[in-house]
Amino acid sequence: MANDEKNELIKHTYRNDNEKNTLKRRLSIIEGQVRGIKQMIDDNRYCGDILIQLLAVNKALQSLENIILESHLEKCISNQIKEGNTEVTKEIMELFKKIR
Amino acid sequence: MANDEKNELIKHTYRNDNEKNTLKRRLSIIEGQVRGIKQMIDDNRYCGDILIQLLAVNKALQSLENIILESHLEKCISNQIKEGNTEVTKEIMELFKKIR
Amino acid sequence: MANDEKNELIKHTYRNDNEKNTLKRRLSIIEGQVRGIKQMIDDNRYCGDILIQLLAVNKALQSLENIILESHLEKCISNQIKEGNTEVTKEIMELFKKIR
Amino acid sequence: MANDEKNELIKHTYRNDNEKNTLKRRLSIIEGQVRGIKQMIDDNRYCGDILIQLLAVNKALQSLENIILESHLEKCISNQIKEGNTEVTKEIMELFKKIR
Repeated sequence: MANDEKNELIKHTYRNDNEKNTLKRRLSIIEGQVRGIKQMIDDNRYCGDILIQLLAVNKALQSLENIILESHLEKCISNQIKEGNTEVTKEIMELFKKIR
Repeated sequence: MANDEKNELIKHTYRNDNEKNTLKRRLSIIEGQVRGIKQMIDDNRYCGDILIQLLAVNKALQSLENIILESHLEKCISNQIKEGNTEVTKEIMELFKKIR
Repeated sequence: MANDEKNELIKHTYRNDNEKNTLKRRLSIIEGQVRGIKQMIDDNRYCGDILIQLLAVNKALQSLENIILESHLEKCISNQIKEGNTEVTKEIMELFKKIR
Repeated sequence: MANDEKNELIKHTYRNDNEKNTLKRRLSIIEGQVRGIKQMIDDNRYCGDILIQLLAVNKALQSLENIILESHLEKCISNQIKEGNTEVTKEIMELFKKIR
């Protein structure tokens, strides 16, 4: 019951299995990259090389963010604007400021 | 033997246990954040909320990069410059350009 | 005539005098900052100090970009989506990618 | 006299005429771009197009910053480290954090 109430406050975006798998596969790759960097720390690898790997994780995250943002704009945001919820542009602006 | 040869081509930065543990703890937190986002995908959570979590991972990575870069500049880079290897400023410049 | 034809290909956003003056005042300040940096070059000022001034210009530009983007999302983009032109989300996505 | 005293507090980086002209030419181009955007505001040009021009100014600034940073690392920073002023890596770190 408490869980149901909590669920009502949580917003959802439904995704099909295909979309879920694409996103989760990318996240698993990122997880693997992070684990690999932990190993590099253990192996006393050169900081310059560790930094390059960390920057590669940043890039992988950004490309995933772009995929999610693109579908967010096309579906959620467009629909909310069509339904008259123009406040949603503020949400995009907030995301945008966080992204910079 | 093959391993030894390979090792000679790999550059190293020695870190004490304390440094290693600090860096690995931060990487484990990032790994946990990424796993949490996979769960959010499974739970059909709102893309806006997923984006905010992804941006939080970016921030965590950047703060880790800053820690590593700071010690990289203080130790490796300073020492290499003192030893007359001024080419190392090119390495820093490359990192800077990747980071932007 | 040639000018009229050209004008038809150019997209417009109408702004009132108040909006125009606010934006132009900010651009004039940025212009002044850039001129000031030219003077610093002439005065052989320390590169570290010049870099800090250049980064201040970046910040001023970003804050102007945020103002324009916010009104762009609230007016142009929202209206185009309401009119059924959902292609416009692609335009926003392109801007986002350029901005990163 | 007052001016002389002030000058002693200001740090300098000497540049030859060639370096000065290269940097000032780039700054003049940026100034011209900013003036062009003021004209676009007056001409009620589409915000999307103004944003693209503003982002072009950002890019031009970043490429100038890279030129200055590169020479800053090669000359000023290397020299200061060789002279034993290792504190200078903190200055680079501060610039780096501002740049992100």
